[in-house]
Amino acid sequence: MKGLYLVTDRDLCLGRPLEEVVVQAVRGGASIVQLREKQISTRDFIDEARRIQAALAPYGVPLVINDRVDVALAVGADGVHIGQSDMPYSMARRLLGPEAIIGLSVETMDQVLEAEAYQVSYLGVSPVFETRTKTDLNGAWGLEGLAQVRRRSRHPLVAIGGIQAANAAAVVQAGADSLAVVSAICSAPDPYQAAQALSQPFHNASAPARRATQ
Amino acid sequence: MKGLYLVTDRDLCLGRPLEEVVVQAVRGGASIVQLREKQISTRDFIDEARRIQAALAPYGVPLVINDRVDVALAVGADGVHIGQSDMPYSMARRLLGPEAIIGLSVETMDQVLEAEAYQVSYLGVSPVFETRTKTDLNGAWGLEGLAQVRRRSRHPLVAIGGIQAANAAAVVQAGADSLAVVSAICSAPDPYQAAQALSQPFHNASAPARRATQ
Repeated sequence: MKGLYLVTDRDLCLGRPLEEVVVQAVRGGASIVQLREKQISTRDFIDEARRIQAALAPYGVPLVINDRVDVALAVGADGVHIGQSDMPYSMARRLLGPEAIIGLSVETMDQVLEAEAYQVSYLGVSPVFETRTKTDLNGAWGLEGLAQVRRRSRHPLVAIGGIQAANAAAVVQAGADSLAVVSAICSAPDPYQAAQALSQPFHNASAPARRATQ
Repeated sequence: MKGLYLVTDRDLCLGRPLEEVVVQAVRGGASIVQLREKQISTRDFIDEARRIQAALAPYGVPLVINDRVDVALAVGADGVHIGQSDMPYSMARRLLGPEAIIGLSVETMDQVLEAEAYQVSYLGVSPVFETRTKTDLNGAWGLEGLAQVRRRSRHPLVAIGGIQAANAAAVVQAGADSLAVVSAICSAPDPYQAAQALSQPFHNASAPARRATQ
């Protein structure tokens, strides 16, 4: 779990098809995609997940589903991202199996410490900065909070919330293994360029750029 | 699949705890319970499903979960009820296994005929009469429509939508194996008595009344 992490929000894509934004983001450097839908039917969520899965297939980029283990199982996604009001980690692991990617959002240090007992694939440190994309907030971690999580957790850390090209390097510096963004790509005039810019901190750490058919 | 079928709606329970209404309904004769939640988090849905499951355990009455295969898997419910905008039947069957109860709502004759190929546990003929509980309607079947479904389907039929004590016998007469109700029990002044009255058509067909610890 390293590099740029795209979390989707269809409503923020400026009218562009979600598949198009996702593919541009991946071509620009995103190394994992989380499909997040809160307001559509299960059937529509499954259909969309299949479309995104097909779009990602040529790039070998994993797809995780926000919250919905049923949708992940139905389409054979690579895993799920769960929050503290979603299915408990242990149940999700039991249903998805030992190989699945399971990411867990943590909003407090208690949750970080509780997760030490879990075989999560990463912790989503949420939110690093204030943002309007997420509404269920306990206040932002800030760079110092992120650094504290880094010191106290054994898991890879995906930072999310208010991350932009301008602060990306500082967030990585503070301990993030991965940077998750929503609007910084979904609402970018050019999602490909936005992803390239946001991937810069990882290129600097000598991670190779992702090519179209890697 | 025979007898009275309770579909829950917490908001219609007049402020009473859902468990209390469910237990009263079962003591009055309900032989299956469908837990339906559309607006709560996955975590809350799972917690509620476990409470209802515990409340039902002494009565041996099965619990099915509306729409959410993940919640059903997480708590080990007896099955799911799916609508036409939920997970497709075949996926749900694959995830839940051959023994699970899977009910499917049908709103058109095309859907009835399509379901002939499925190993569904029952069809939910929805709605039989106009109702304000469900909003995704293609118009009501009516008693004549229900009778047509009866002639063309091999599956047990659960009639739902606008069923009350006053029309229950006519709906069974038209071909329903089971009567599903929401507000007629959830909003009843006495859910136990309401369930008794709604079970009357099945008692008349010599089905034994359900006792508290059957």
